[in-house]
Amino acid sequence: MKRIAIDMDEVIADFVFKHLNLYNRDFNESLSVEDLYGTRLWKLRPHISKEILAYVNDPAFFRDLRVIKGSQEVIQALSEKYEIFITTAAMEHPSSFTAKYEWLEEHFPFLTAMNFVFCGDKSIIHADYLIDDNPKHFRRFIGKGILFTAPHNIHETGYVRVNNWHDVKQYFRNLHEN
Amino acid sequence: MKRIAIDMDEVIADFVFKHLNLYNRDFNESLSVEDLYGTRLWKLRPHISKEILAYVNDPAFFRDLRVIKGSQEVIQALSEKYEIFITTAAMEHPSSFTAKYEWLEEHFPFLTAMNFVFCGDKSIIHADYLIDDNPKHFRRFIGKGILFTAPHNIHETGYVRVNNWHDVKQYFRNLHEN
Repeated sequence: MKRIAIDMDEVIADFVFKHLNLYNRDFNESLSVEDLYGTRLWKLRPHISKEILAYVNDPAFFRDLRVIKGSQEVIQALSEKYEIFITTAAMEHPSSFTAKYEWLEEHFPFLTAMNFVFCGDKSIIHADYLIDDNPKHFRRFIGKGILFTAPHNIHETGYVRVNNWHDVKQYFRNLHEN
Repeated sequence: MKRIAIDMDEVIADFVFKHLNLYNRDFNESLSVEDLYGTRLWKLRPHISKEILAYVNDPAFFRDLRVIKGSQEVIQALSEKYEIFITTAAMEHPSSFTAKYEWLEEHFPFLTAMNFVFCGDKSIIHADYLIDDNPKHFRRFIGKGILFTAPHNIHETGYVRVNNWHDVKQYFRNLHEN
């Protein structure tokens, strides 16, 4: 059985929606997702990058993120033909461990926690595919990297790109591996 | 650079010493490590296995484990020639995440948190070597499994065995890989 590793933030968990809303509320702005094309919020407002980054230090920040549309259905279907591992760079936000674990248990109850991986450097992941919004993780990854579109990576080229979970479904359907 | 993945409990963190001490205190017993040869405490006292297993649900349980002798020095030396990843089956004890992270930061400050991996099924680990006390993790591991002696695995055969961190040092010295 081939194996698909799947990132959390910006792939199955809508990090940007919550982060941007909190920012707009607290700093009296009305930035949209389009304003983040090719960049990150903390790069767009460098003079307050510290405050912007501080939101994710709240241990509860990751607990109530929206589920990215289609991810549950498509991952459940894929789990019948592939081993699914959720591989998140949680070491970047150590306070997020419990929230991320509980979020996964709530929204992806058909997956086993034994297949959750909280890591930092994803080159440690042994899988055939990695669906991730951050192309840095593909550099030393031994399998095939699949770039999941997020505002910050919109201008990245050189990777197989999927824009949403419908695209992921089509990608694996077209492989005819099973 | 080749890569060594290293387990925590019973390899760098002395799980049994604390667990057995707590048990002996609370249940008025005087079991020794030798009593655990080839078994586990909860198998030795099946009628109270639930209580015995409950100790590790305390979020602080893993925070003050003793460091296994020699692990710091040998891992620091190995880290000059190998990429070191700490790979622990933390998903078996989700309440342990923070304690395990803080313990690693305290006792292995020369390692980067980006190389900590909290997982369940270790077949997800992409490394050349895995030093672990639990042979179940070697079954689907793509690299070389190295069994670190712990009371419960004393009768296991069929694996390269190291009894302590001096043995680990010798093992890698004898490889002449560098």
